[in-house]
Amino acid sequence: MNYRNRRTVRAYTDQAVSESALETILEAAARASNTGNMQTYSIILTTSAERKAQLGPLHFGQPMVEQAPVVLTFCADFRRFTQWCEASGEEVAYDNFMSLYTATIDAMLAAQNAAVAAEDLGLGICFLGTTLYNMPGIIELLRLPKGVVPVTTVTIGHPKSLPELTERLPLSAIVHREEYKERSPEEVRALYAETEALERNQQFVRDNGKETLAQVFCQVRYSPESYATLSKAIIETLRTQGFAL
Amino acid sequence: MNYRNRRTVRAYTDQAVSESALETILEAAARASNTGNMQTYSIILTTSAERKAQLGPLHFGQPMVEQAPVVLTFCADFRRFTQWCEASGEEVAYDNFMSLYTATIDAMLAAQNAAVAAEDLGLGICFLGTTLYNMPGIIELLRLPKGVVPVTTVTIGHPKSLPELTERLPLSAIVHREEYKERSPEEVRALYAETEALERNQQFVRDNGKETLAQVFCQVRYSPESYATLSKAIIETLRTQGFAL
Repeated sequence: MNYRNRRTVRAYTDQAVSESALETILEAAARASNTGNMQTYSIILTTSAERKAQLGPLHFGQPMVEQAPVVLTFCADFRRFTQWCEASGEEVAYDNFMSLYTATIDAMLAAQNAAVAAEDLGLGICFLGTTLYNMPGIIELLRLPKGVVPVTTVTIGHPKSLPELTERLPLSAIVHREEYKERSPEEVRALYAETEALERNQQFVRDNGKETLAQVFCQVRYSPESYATLSKAIIETLRTQGFAL
Repeated sequence: MNYRNRRTVRAYTDQAVSESALETILEAAARASNTGNMQTYSIILTTSAERKAQLGPLHFGQPMVEQAPVVLTFCADFRRFTQWCEASGEEVAYDNFMSLYTATIDAMLAAQNAAVAAEDLGLGICFLGTTLYNMPGIIELLRLPKGVVPVTTVTIGHPKSLPELTERLPLSAIVHREEYKERSPEEVRALYAETEALERNQQFVRDNGKETLAQVFCQVRYSPESYATLSKAIIETLRTQGFAL
């Protein structure tokens, strides 16, 4: 396993993912660490062409959803655990931030273990952050009951080609020894210098009609305004699904 | 790599984790998928005995913290990204739920990739859910600024012994094909039957003076009341750290 070379794969061949590969991937998900062994997550497995055609638009039509033989939607799920408590005669309400956050953490550990297992098998994967953008539609399509919300999606298939390796910030940008070191604006700029200098990123800036890479991120792709709007929508959806923040 | 056999390791030998192993682990963390390549997380690396002695009590004195040669605290971090935008002349505020949730997802993917890389190197790891229980203390000790909150902690070291494999629910409990299948109380109980029948879990029930395993979870270990209390405390801490939910 070579962690330095892992990359996101967005284009897949027609080849199916075998049932045994799928089982290995799902068992890897289940084997991940989780909170108190409550396993407060669920995985919705989408393989039918019809379902994928319905799911695709909920991810803004990104082609991986329809093209990938396997789509896994990882959900934070306190419903099954709650049902178990109730079936054992206990009245419980896991309907708050801690429940959601714990279940989210469990779901993400499972998702990443599934992704690593898939890559280990020579498959390609792509995480879809768009899962948070159209939660109500995904909830409806996948028939998620109260106590269950989609957190992330992983598409899996045989890679059509090996994409270019995406850059990362230097380790010194993300690792702090013993305590968080505050940085001056100059120090921060230096951490991003290599990223900004990449021809691919400079082209990305030009394509977006901007002057800096930071502008592309905070004005176009992930603007604070869009995050504020999304926050309100998601909190509303979470309330509907039984997590009152 | 055998995902079926991964287990949490809570006791470590005195042997240090080599710098090259540590670098592999941290690079694996950085190589994980993340949102838009913003890498909205940071990792605080604790190796000094003095720091571990201070961090231990914040994890309820769990011995792994002081015993493990390496302790990694994974933080949701929109601070560095915000600083970069500001250094580029942009005024931005990533101070809401979406920012927190995105950064949490990034942090968890990085944490799980680090954990898998460590296990790949023959090291043992343990995730500490207690990170959410004493957030203010951890924030103070690690000097986390606004925009940064601890999400999970991973202890890493050479395993002292190989613990018993912990059970998991059957895959049918966590995987739903095409859509979420609602279950009757009997069906839910059946999913937990094997878990409840384990001698280890029956002993666990007796040790806690309870009648069912569900009671141990919802009355002792993860009670809805404790979750409600924690939710309020965490939301307060998040506000202080700049995420207004």
